[in-house]
Amino acid sequence: MNFEKEKHHFKGDETGLDKEKYVIETFLFESQIDPEDAALHLCQEHSTAQWKRVDVDEDFRPQHAAKLLSLEVLETKDTPAFPAPFHTGPKFHTCRARIANPHINFGAKLPNLLTVVCGEGVFYSPGITAIKLLDLDFPDAYLDQFEGPQFGVRGVRDLLQIYDRPIFLGVVKPNIGLDPGSFSELAYQSWLGGLDAPKDDEMLADVGYSTLEKRTALLGKLRRKAEQETGEKKMYIANITDEVDRIEALHDMAVANGINAVMLNGWAIGLSACRSLRKKAKVPLVAHFDFIAAFTRVPYFGMSVALSTKLQRLAGFDIILFPGLSARMQTTKEEMMSNVKACLEPMGKIKPSLPVPGGSDWAGNLDKMYDIMGSVDFGMVPGRGVFNHPMGPKAGARSFRQAWEAIQKKIPVKEYANSHEELKTAFEAFEEC
Amino acid sequence: MNFEKEKHHFKGDETGLDKEKYVIETFLFESQIDPEDAALHLCQEHSTAQWKRVDVDEDFRPQHAAKLLSLEVLETKDTPAFPAPFHTGPKFHTCRARIANPHINFGAKLPNLLTVVCGEGVFYSPGITAIKLLDLDFPDAYLDQFEGPQFGVRGVRDLLQIYDRPIFLGVVKPNIGLDPGSFSELAYQSWLGGLDAPKDDEMLADVGYSTLEKRTALLGKLRRKAEQETGEKKMYIANITDEVDRIEALHDMAVANGINAVMLNGWAIGLSACRSLRKKAKVPLVAHFDFIAAFTRVPYFGMSVALSTKLQRLAGFDIILFPGLSARMQTTKEEMMSNVKACLEPMGKIKPSLPVPGGSDWAGNLDKMYDIMGSVDFGMVPGRGVFNHPMGPKAGARSFRQAWEAIQKKIPVKEYANSHEELKTAFEAFEEC
Repeated sequence: MNFEKEKHHFKGDETGLDKEKYVIETFLFESQIDPEDAALHLCQEHSTAQWKRVDVDEDFRPQHAAKLLSLEVLETKDTPAFPAPFHTGPKFHTCRARIANPHINFGAKLPNLLTVVCGEGVFYSPGITAIKLLDLDFPDAYLDQFEGPQFGVRGVRDLLQIYDRPIFLGVVKPNIGLDPGSFSELAYQSWLGGLDAPKDDEMLADVGYSTLEKRTALLGKLRRKAEQETGEKKMYIANITDEVDRIEALHDMAVANGINAVMLNGWAIGLSACRSLRKKAKVPLVAHFDFIAAFTRVPYFGMSVALSTKLQRLAGFDIILFPGLSARMQTTKEEMMSNVKACLEPMGKIKPSLPVPGGSDWAGNLDKMYDIMGSVDFGMVPGRGVFNHPMGPKAGARSFRQAWEAIQKKIPVKEYANSHEELKTAFEAFEEC
Repeated sequence: MNFEKEKHHFKGDETGLDKEKYVIETFLFESQIDPEDAALHLCQEHSTAQWKRVDVDEDFRPQHAAKLLSLEVLETKDTPAFPAPFHTGPKFHTCRARIANPHINFGAKLPNLLTVVCGEGVFYSPGITAIKLLDLDFPDAYLDQFEGPQFGVRGVRDLLQIYDRPIFLGVVKPNIGLDPGSFSELAYQSWLGGLDAPKDDEMLADVGYSTLEKRTALLGKLRRKAEQETGEKKMYIANITDEVDRIEALHDMAVANGINAVMLNGWAIGLSACRSLRKKAKVPLVAHFDFIAAFTRVPYFGMSVALSTKLQRLAGFDIILFPGLSARMQTTKEEMMSNVKACLEPMGKIKPSLPVPGGSDWAGNLDKMYDIMGSVDFGMVPGRGVFNHPMGPKAGARSFRQAWEAIQKKIPVKEYANSHEELKTAFEAFEEC
């Protein structure tokens, strides 16, 4: 095959494109061959790798080929992004490419979409030594085939009857090992103190020492009790992460037990199973971010974390957790805000998801997070910051509500702590962390 | 929390360990703090992040904590594996750690296993700047809870009645765009020429221009016809990759139409959905390797490709495709053989899966591959090498059988080509590729 003679078939024209027919991919890639050749090979490899039968006069490329819309060479270096036996250079070009891929090839199906935009053709393309899928832009004709979040930010707020502040989630700790009775009591205390929606740790699901059936039965009752005692709406987020053939039954059982939100470790289960549950779910779906770092954190390989969030929104998650700003999370403000944008930006008819930056939250972080967000449409999800509060989880939860009171009153949170014991104790315990 | 006083709780002892209770993780990680501190923090973060309630005298670590068994510092450098704002050093230690993680924490469930071994706790652990999960060793008590492959290598051989040579799969091309009738005719020709098991391209599933229903109906009939005409058993591998709530129905429909193997792009769908289908499947399951590169190809981040293969075997795939040796695949012999080992090595009661290195195979590769494998227990999966053969797919398939004849007769394949037209044409067309 003489690629030189064929490559014009993979060139596209942004202005002439029927945009409703294409998903637009943005790739960052590194090439050790001519960048345009690499980009056009890439188009071929993840669409019409072979476009005709032998001895038949036909060409499937006009309708089915991916087409290069634009290409920028950002940098040329002498060393590859990472060393490997086949990365021989001598020059390595860092490039950004926009490619239009016809969705007739894969349909509005997450596994088939992933196969094309993050499959063999993308990662094994001639001359490309590193590649990261930065973004996908979907036309309305494509988005309209997805359900998206059932509740979205507004629906979650309606359930909780909270419209003017961030949502206070929480991760019940000790995360592993506690019996269902003691565990539920901790969640109950956190509700009394002011949490809206405590949840299971991502590592705690339906396990022998704490079955989801026992745990949700207790938590469902205590949730209603907490609502009566506080006069506030309360939520519990049960982690129903399990083998795919069990999650629907676990959802149904949890809901029957009075649980009003369920968590799925989305990418660890597979987003398609989450979308499948979404079609039948009766309560909001909450996504935890396990496994995502494995394919998002390296700057030049895999998929951008914001796209992993966008795909979770597309799969139908109402609440999406992602790395927040503590030292442990090693996450920049820019990365965090790219996830917030993926949750909230307009996306056809797909509802926004509530963004929840997570990791080592405590009451003293709230003002900073609110400043950065510039809106109340986010959640906080403290773990040890509530459940390892020296005065216990009720006080830990209260410290968050006190921090919010301070923000509303425009009093510095640390100053407010002087007259509020729970908040003061939080500063003493967590400020150095 | 004074970690100095707590860290001995995360130290383990290989000889004293009740091995049946633990999954053993092998991590490669880079640390910018004391390596042992980093490894012990890692143990904490992906098990008992908080191990007791406030004001209660209890400790869940003896039963539930992950425990460091061994630690090797391989190298200390001045620069991190990849630059990031939080990778400040000044020194970076490359380490290998073996950690025992009690499976009581997560159970024999793939999403929960992944959540623990490749979740938040692993990728966001204090002082660790890069981390790759190299391997998992499962005790029999854990493996016994998985079904594994239903057919395995022996079962696939029994279906095809082939015991003394590699299995010749193939990817029908043009991969995208062809109508079901023309497509099926190509598969039929490849059977007549000598392929055992042509298959759909990973990007071709149930799409509007070629529904799986129409395609499998035609292919099922032609498969039987090819069996009658050749006197050989034949297989077609239909790609039923789709949203999870459709794959069982697609499997059933394909089987009813006479299809006798189905392909799932395993990691793109999610391995748990594949395991769920495995429990009901009537035909062998074939795994394609989409999405895997995103989290396996960087040497110091994510998961080893061999482990991604091992997990596919655990999920129940009978035939597993992974990158082979052509220039396009940028894969070393060592990497390829690590996948072969993951398919074939003893694994409790879990049957072996047939390993299939893929990517730009043609007849002239066969002897090299057979040499490297040292056994007939593998598959070849040519695409263009059969379906873009200048004399057509029947001749392309025949070129593979001719190459195998040459190997059996201990005649160099290229010499054998002189007297075998299809093989000779293959050399003319593909030797330079």
